[in-house]
Amino acid sequence: MVKIGIVGGTGYTGVELLRLLASHERAEVAAITSRAESGRRVDELFPNLRGHYDLAFSEPEVGELASCDVVFFATPHNVAMNMVPELLAAGTRVIDLSADYRLRDAALWSRWYGEPHASPECLADAVYGLPEVNREAIAGARLVACPGCYPTAVQLGLIPLLERQLVDPQQLIASAASGVSGAGRQAKIDNLVSEASDSFKAYGVTGHRHLPEIEQGLADVAGQQVSVTFVPHLLPMIRGIHATLFANLQGDPGELQALFESRYASEPFVDVLPAGVYPQTRTVRGANRCQISVAVPQGRGTVVVMSTIDNLVKGASGQAVQNMNIMLGLPETMGLQQVGLLP
Amino acid sequence: MVKIGIVGGTGYTGVELLRLLASHERAEVAAITSRAESGRRVDELFPNLRGHYDLAFSEPEVGELASCDVVFFATPHNVAMNMVPELLAAGTRVIDLSADYRLRDAALWSRWYGEPHASPECLADAVYGLPEVNREAIAGARLVACPGCYPTAVQLGLIPLLERQLVDPQQLIASAASGVSGAGRQAKIDNLVSEASDSFKAYGVTGHRHLPEIEQGLADVAGQQVSVTFVPHLLPMIRGIHATLFANLQGDPGELQALFESRYASEPFVDVLPAGVYPQTRTVRGANRCQISVAVPQGRGTVVVMSTIDNLVKGASGQAVQNMNIMLGLPETMGLQQVGLLP
Amino acid sequence: MVKIGIVGGTGYTGVELLRLLASHERAEVAAITSRAESGRRVDELFPNLRGHYDLAFSEPEVGELASCDVVFFATPHNVAMNMVPELLAAGTRVIDLSADYRLRDAALWSRWYGEPHASPECLADAVYGLPEVNREAIAGARLVACPGCYPTAVQLGLIPLLERQLVDPQQLIASAASGVSGAGRQAKIDNLVSEASDSFKAYGVTGHRHLPEIEQGLADVAGQQVSVTFVPHLLPMIRGIHATLFANLQGDPGELQALFESRYASEPFVDVLPAGVYPQTRTVRGANRCQISVAVPQGRGTVVVMSTIDNLVKGASGQAVQNMNIMLGLPETMGLQQVGLLP
Amino acid sequence: MVKIGIVGGTGYTGVELLRLLASHERAEVAAITSRAESGRRVDELFPNLRGHYDLAFSEPEVGELASCDVVFFATPHNVAMNMVPELLAAGTRVIDLSADYRLRDAALWSRWYGEPHASPECLADAVYGLPEVNREAIAGARLVACPGCYPTAVQLGLIPLLERQLVDPQQLIASAASGVSGAGRQAKIDNLVSEASDSFKAYGVTGHRHLPEIEQGLADVAGQQVSVTFVPHLLPMIRGIHATLFANLQGDPGELQALFESRYASEPFVDVLPAGVYPQTRTVRGANRCQISVAVPQGRGTVVVMSTIDNLVKGASGQAVQNMNIMLGLPETMGLQQVGLLP
Repeated sequence: MVKIGIVGGTGYTGVELLRLLASHERAEVAAITSRAESGRRVDELFPNLRGHYDLAFSEPEVGELASCDVVFFATPHNVAMNMVPELLAAGTRVIDLSADYRLRDAALWSRWYGEPHASPECLADAVYGLPEVNREAIAGARLVACPGCYPTAVQLGLIPLLERQLVDPQQLIASAASGVSGAGRQAKIDNLVSEASDSFKAYGVTGHRHLPEIEQGLADVAGQQVSVTFVPHLLPMIRGIHATLFANLQGDPGELQALFESRYASEPFVDVLPAGVYPQTRTVRGANRCQISVAVPQGRGTVVVMSTIDNLVKGASGQAVQNMNIMLGLPETMGLQQVGLLP
Repeated sequence: MVKIGIVGGTGYTGVELLRLLASHERAEVAAITSRAESGRRVDELFPNLRGHYDLAFSEPEVGELASCDVVFFATPHNVAMNMVPELLAAGTRVIDLSADYRLRDAALWSRWYGEPHASPECLADAVYGLPEVNREAIAGARLVACPGCYPTAVQLGLIPLLERQLVDPQQLIASAASGVSGAGRQAKIDNLVSEASDSFKAYGVTGHRHLPEIEQGLADVAGQQVSVTFVPHLLPMIRGIHATLFANLQGDPGELQALFESRYASEPFVDVLPAGVYPQTRTVRGANRCQISVAVPQGRGTVVVMSTIDNLVKGASGQAVQNMNIMLGLPETMGLQQVGLLP
Repeated sequence: MVKIGIVGGTGYTGVELLRLLASHERAEVAAITSRAESGRRVDELFPNLRGHYDLAFSEPEVGELASCDVVFFATPHNVAMNMVPELLAAGTRVIDLSADYRLRDAALWSRWYGEPHASPECLADAVYGLPEVNREAIAGARLVACPGCYPTAVQLGLIPLLERQLVDPQQLIASAASGVSGAGRQAKIDNLVSEASDSFKAYGVTGHRHLPEIEQGLADVAGQQVSVTFVPHLLPMIRGIHATLFANLQGDPGELQALFESRYASEPFVDVLPAGVYPQTRTVRGANRCQISVAVPQGRGTVVVMSTIDNLVKGASGQAVQNMNIMLGLPETMGLQQVGLLP
Repeated sequence: MVKIGIVGGTGYTGVELLRLLASHERAEVAAITSRAESGRRVDELFPNLRGHYDLAFSEPEVGELASCDVVFFATPHNVAMNMVPELLAAGTRVIDLSADYRLRDAALWSRWYGEPHASPECLADAVYGLPEVNREAIAGARLVACPGCYPTAVQLGLIPLLERQLVDPQQLIASAASGVSGAGRQAKIDNLVSEASDSFKAYGVTGHRHLPEIEQGLADVAGQQVSVTFVPHLLPMIRGIHATLFANLQGDPGELQALFESRYASEPFVDVLPAGVYPQTRTVRGANRCQISVAVPQGRGTVVVMSTIDNLVKGASGQAVQNMNIMLGLPETMGLQQVGLLP
């Protein structure tokens, strides 16, 4: 069995890790930490877990965590980067769901997060955990930085186009929308039912923290700098991300449907839909899956890609488990075969 | 024009008062207070009000408020009871939307609210603002205690039965459900979209603060003590209360449909639906209206009454304006003719 | 492997059977029928199933179905009762999710469904598939009638009280609410987003078809006739049933919490919550589980039981799989260990 | 009083016209037609209207409609174009909320709607009813074609940029989202709560019927052909449209915030929000208002405009009443001062 520790278990990515690991035949969650809820049973906070775990939250202690084979950080940014060096030194593998190790450039990180990076020396060891691009590096990694939810949906949608230089990398547009669970389990007026249900709005238009991560990842596959106009929106629902991506075609793109299908043919968690079928967030709800469509409306020069994920699964905890499977040499799909909950 | 002050304008009953008063031809809102938001424009917090008000929040000062003809308290409990004595002494009329003056018995109030009442001497002057029962007393009142949202829906549903002694007053059951706006505009995890949308639950089963208010009001019309089992539930939506009321019939009740219709025939804001039509919260959304149906399933001895209101209108701010109209001798329906927003 | 046929696979209980059976290690779905969609791939209609099934809908033919070990009917009423006799004659086990075999009395069935029963001779063979009451009979059954969604939630909530004669069986009240998926996948204006979301209403107050089923089941455990006032409501959400049950206590009930806990101690899919914790539909979303709480508000003589299920799982397809496991001597929990999808 | 007829009153734009006209001091609705519901009281279908109208649906007869001062068509396309010629001949003013007269080019109309236009001779008389562009022409019109909901939001957002030639008219992108009420009150599986709530998807990507209308209107203000990539999405809520618009700036645009503010300074129903504030659909819910923001993320060359309306008000019935006011020389805001219903 793989002995697992989870730091920061009271948020939505924490409970989602527990949901997924409950059906993972090799996983054994040994510790789940929370300063605020230390001592409280996990299933008291999350009654959907009753009967599945006999665990209580504990104080986060590096010593105990270091005895695990793998530690997940399901924390806000600025937690992992303070504890990871010690864990790595102890030989523990780390999968960080937060933003701490996603940007290779510590200065860039500081600009977007407003504080110095606490362990820039680890950045070189961190592998960006998008298996569809970095599978081999992940397999050998001791520290994986799980991609953000928006970056997962946006990158998977644009990669086939940028890898082949089919679109202008300077004019990329990502109009994306997320369910409210993306904002975490925090008491904020903006995310109350009375504020955020039955409404739709853009936010972070002038600069969302996922932008540099998206641009870094896309530049890697494009082999050059890219420029993305990224506008996130808040959906009146809990789970799901939908990215609508626009790019200007350069030259004759050929058969885009075939290109997308072949790019992801061997990917277990990327599903290119048949031509003319558009993805819905509900068909990936609860599933570790990205569903993608591509179209060129009116045959004009703009390609539109639609990409959906469950922000808590392929956009966070599911992708984290996928990374764990790869790191440990387990079958990549172990524990991740859930069918989306429809309706 | 009626000069109006509103204490506590940053909550949902505050913004709802502003919405309703914007179309009230005699109302002029002179002051709206908020300690936390003092100095900030009202339409910055509530952009639906842009163009309708040129007002900023101010500190709550009794002196300024006392210069108003009417002051509304759209506050949590324990605010009005500290300021009302001074306002009454200054000759200002007060309409309190909070719970401070709803219970006649200060000891009972203390038991349910966990603190002493700050101005028990005013309780005798307070008129319970349910116009369908107390219209005359309201007309002469200087202090009106607006009913709670659940108590409005429950009492209007049971009054016709209890006035005529048609049901056993010791076995009343109220299974009611409210939209999340009833919980106010406060940062609480429980009321996040991710927690309270897409779900349904009971709460406060062993004792909700609206219970003593319901029992006090129903005892008045029954002419004896009543006992209510009251179970409130949280609906995954913003506005609306639905009360499903059960009572045991005593003897032959006669034609209940006709009884309900005649009881409310002259009430402008209580609408008894035709036999066989059940109320929906959406048909009263945004309207100062209670829609009611009555049925006796299978002709057995249990009567079922269904009663719906918009908790922010007939359950709070609309009823408050209705009370103001009555107190000032204005037409009772002034500013309250909004059609429900359907769909 | 168990060879499975599903009749009527285009509805929500059909797709839910497929979701659950996809993770059932012994199940092999051989045929799924639909007259309207014959020839169309299942995953075209339900893209959440892509990669999980390589099946197309077929015409319902008894011959082919009879070659299965088990046939599920996920149909409206009045389909199963015409095909079941032939299937039983062929030795095929049948699990009917519709209402056709739930009532033992064909005349009563006709009164509620407005037509004669097509195979009353099979009623004596039908076992009512509520494992918490009928486990042994189910194990030996060839035809199981799966309980309705409301009846499951209501019966599980009242059984502990009625078995012990703790409450008056003539004064039972069930105020229940269901998500819209309970109305099925049919094009009806009433169930459009614009009609049924953001609203709440009662329906079927004068007589819902689940009433006789509830009363039949409760009479069995009470050992006498019972009378239930049953008011269903429509919730503005997709999945979930919440039943709020009221009954008059007779004599000293003793410790109800302990009674409920002990009654369901060995039941894998009934979860009595700790005292003071009330169930939410979201904590059983997607799970084959009933969560229950019991309370006696203010220590008066009325007991309140709250009971939640996912109407498509423990209220339909999950319970059907549970019945299949019992009939075939498989572990009862096989394929049914899904954790509820929270948030 | 203005005598008003409404053709097709059973849809959402019909009931919304009735809601708005109920508070219009000069409007008298004399007839409301529906073939399917002829003879049924309007408030039976829409109980929010109880007490506001004493009207029943009638068969649509041109003779009776011709006696009205103004006739609104709240119908699907292909109804108005068959009745309008006769009404115009009788001297009745017509306001068509459907698509029949929106495109000036009958051949283009036929291409998108798949049938010949029944009264192309009237197209020259039809004025496109976007008051912010065509106020004078509307004042003199006998036939007004009300803009579609998406076209209203998209055009109001792009007009200030295109009028000044600030952006490339060949590279316009409109990523827009609508509540489900935009799909009308029709029994379609796709719009059930169980299908369309709790999800988000794009639709009509390869060609939505609002595209030629958008391009026609924008070409008028740009003084040249324009090319728009238009991707509509379905929001899991009832009311509201949000358009997120992207365009490439040409040269130095100057101060866009000031440009937008000055363009709409005298428009009663277009509200440019302060810099940095983004619109939400909820702040225009129920109101005849378009709220707009403009931003240039990271100061790069792409301008982003966000534009919100209530699709049933400024996107349909409210705009129709606004057009009526202009046509009849009434104050443009009469009956349209509703404050948005927030929360």
